[in-house]
Amino acid sequence: MKVYKKAILPPGFKANGIACGLKKSGRLDLALFYSEAPAKAACLFTVNKIQAAPIKVNRKFLRKGRDFRAVIANSGNANCFTGPQGLRDAEDTAVILAKLLGIKKEKILLASTGIIGKKMAMRKIRQGLPQLVSGLSRQGIAAAARAIFTTDTFSKEATAKISIGGKPVLVCGVAKGAGMIAPDMVYPERSRGATMLCFIFTDANISSGALKRALEAAARQSFHCITVDGCMSTNDSVMLLANGAAKNTLINGKGKNFALFSEALEKVSLALAKMIVSDAEGASKFIQVKVAQAPNFAEARKAALAIANSNLFKTAVYGENPNFGRIAAAVGASGIRVSEENLKIKLGPLKRKIIDVTVSLGQGDFSCTVYTADLAPRYIKINAEYS
Amino acid sequence: MKVYKKAILPPGFKANGIACGLKKSGRLDLALFYSEAPAKAACLFTVNKIQAAPIKVNRKFLRKGRDFRAVIANSGNANCFTGPQGLRDAEDTAVILAKLLGIKKEKILLASTGIIGKKMAMRKIRQGLPQLVSGLSRQGIAAAARAIFTTDTFSKEATAKISIGGKPVLVCGVAKGAGMIAPDMVYPERSRGATMLCFIFTDANISSGALKRALEAAARQSFHCITVDGCMSTNDSVMLLANGAAKNTLINGKGKNFALFSEALEKVSLALAKMIVSDAEGASKFIQVKVAQAPNFAEARKAALAIANSNLFKTAVYGENPNFGRIAAAVGASGIRVSEENLKIKLGPLKRKIIDVTVSLGQGDFSCTVYTADLAPRYIKINAEYS
Repeated sequence: MKVYKKAILPPGFKANGIACGLKKSGRLDLALFYSEAPAKAACLFTVNKIQAAPIKVNRKFLRKGRDFRAVIANSGNANCFTGPQGLRDAEDTAVILAKLLGIKKEKILLASTGIIGKKMAMRKIRQGLPQLVSGLSRQGIAAAARAIFTTDTFSKEATAKISIGGKPVLVCGVAKGAGMIAPDMVYPERSRGATMLCFIFTDANISSGALKRALEAAARQSFHCITVDGCMSTNDSVMLLANGAAKNTLINGKGKNFALFSEALEKVSLALAKMIVSDAEGASKFIQVKVAQAPNFAEARKAALAIANSNLFKTAVYGENPNFGRIAAAVGASGIRVSEENLKIKLGPLKRKIIDVTVSLGQGDFSCTVYTADLAPRYIKINAEYS
Repeated sequence: MKVYKKAILPPGFKANGIACGLKKSGRLDLALFYSEAPAKAACLFTVNKIQAAPIKVNRKFLRKGRDFRAVIANSGNANCFTGPQGLRDAEDTAVILAKLLGIKKEKILLASTGIIGKKMAMRKIRQGLPQLVSGLSRQGIAAAARAIFTTDTFSKEATAKISIGGKPVLVCGVAKGAGMIAPDMVYPERSRGATMLCFIFTDANISSGALKRALEAAARQSFHCITVDGCMSTNDSVMLLANGAAKNTLINGKGKNFALFSEALEKVSLALAKMIVSDAEGASKFIQVKVAQAPNFAEARKAALAIANSNLFKTAVYGENPNFGRIAAAVGASGIRVSEENLKIKLGPLKRKIIDVTVSLGQGDFSCTVYTADLAPRYIKINAEYS
């Protein structure tokens, strides 16, 4: 199965991205994704106890139904820790957009990324929305992908093409990352890592239950296995919309069609997750940390995340300094069961751009690979000045 | 009660520090603390699942008795993740030293700090020990305090003077820190932060049980409330020796004398813990994070550590950038119960050298203050090159 590093929006979807003035730089900051027909949605949101207003509004709308028509996302402001006014602003955005699109507000999902604790400049959003809507097109996905940037330096796009019962099906996603990246949207353990936003669109005809199951499985080894800085965001969101336009036989939660769709979704998710890490703030290396021979997946992931979030390990990689003792210390501090006698650490050549670390626990058959980046002085510069 | 920022070794104790060649720089790297009479010992060791060889040997010796005569500590090598050879090296050090001091090896405690995963240069230690022993003196504490440096830039010393039933009593401690500082030696929750070593000596006449209780209480709000980089070491150790030379009425676990001794120990511990943070690798700011109105101390500490270990918060302080949203995100990600409506965040002026953060949870009466430092580019430089 081929995954293209470009967003090819499936039939029935349109998108657009504009600059409405939330970013002082004048860059794109408002994105819209639109489905001509009702699309089934599956969503994952951050487990952070402080949740952005758009996430709270999404939860409310999701309780009213699973069919959606649009996703609106802004960068430049996270609309988080903004109190009741923040909630009103998020909902008002849906109200205004719904009127422009001629749909109900509850059929819109919302996402924000940017500064936490700052009131939304609603006048700018309100003024921008008509232009955002009138410019919708299938090619607009490229502008939409850029409009969700915060400190991102390149557009994260991926598309898988599959065939279900002879019908061509597309799975297309766009994402943003860069810093405050440590998404944890399903697992109860704490993980850490700018807000990750990911929007995936497919024309597959698939049941709601199968869509949710496929997304959870795909996230487990992609979005939940990346970390830039161990700082979990208040805004992390993955949204998957399926409009059924491919008119394939309905995919339910089993069989080879479900397996095929799941594989496409996994590949798109992993490609986007890796792109987020490739664009980590200030980083010079892409690091793959595999923890193998674990008694279960959760412990493998916990140990891999502990290594990937160790500032000492990350600075050593930045310095091309093969300090494997810091890996041992991070595993030992992770909270998982460790047998020093059985612990084996393999650290690949550090002069390369892609660094491989393999830790074998000698305790079982489970493994997990976590993707991260080194910690470079430019990360500090970017985040010391970000506001 | 006055605490002096200088080590004044109590009567009956002697110390020395020499350069035996473990450090290529030729700086002091071997420290010895000696008690003329058997001294009761209370110790705390890291909860890291990978434990350095000296800690394993200490546990063995502690099972054979609680009276000790000496503590030997080296810098330049952590003797950790060194397998059976590491254990033999640690025990051999005790054997050779015991012969020179004319005591049993089981009466010696050991500590190491430096690179993890490197074989000890035993020939250098063996050659250095006679000089180390022959130079013991009460004034030798100053050299001993410097001999435990890794990336430390100043000597961490503190002494409290109290009077128990008319008898003058000293509580004197020395410590080292700088990076891999996130000691957790008692609490089950994970915390993170170069190895912290701390050696405290008192001439108080005190029962073993009271000594242990006083140390645990003192550590709870000092050593367990500091973090530099969230990286828990494999070698963190606090050792407290009481030789009874003051000949005061025996202090047991209650009454005003126990309270007075405990207060002296707390003040010395807190002074040393704060000095460790003041000397944090590359740092430009000293940060005090107070979490108040918590339902219990453990949650207050967990939230305060989460803020103190947030790279995004630490880089914002470095940049003098009042980004309080990152504090909210860290509290929300910490795993404690959070009510956004009741959460109040106060961030003091960032132009100062000492930064105060106060977070009120609005949930109870417990509070905890954690001490940390900002994350500056020099931290990366130091740790990219450390080997």
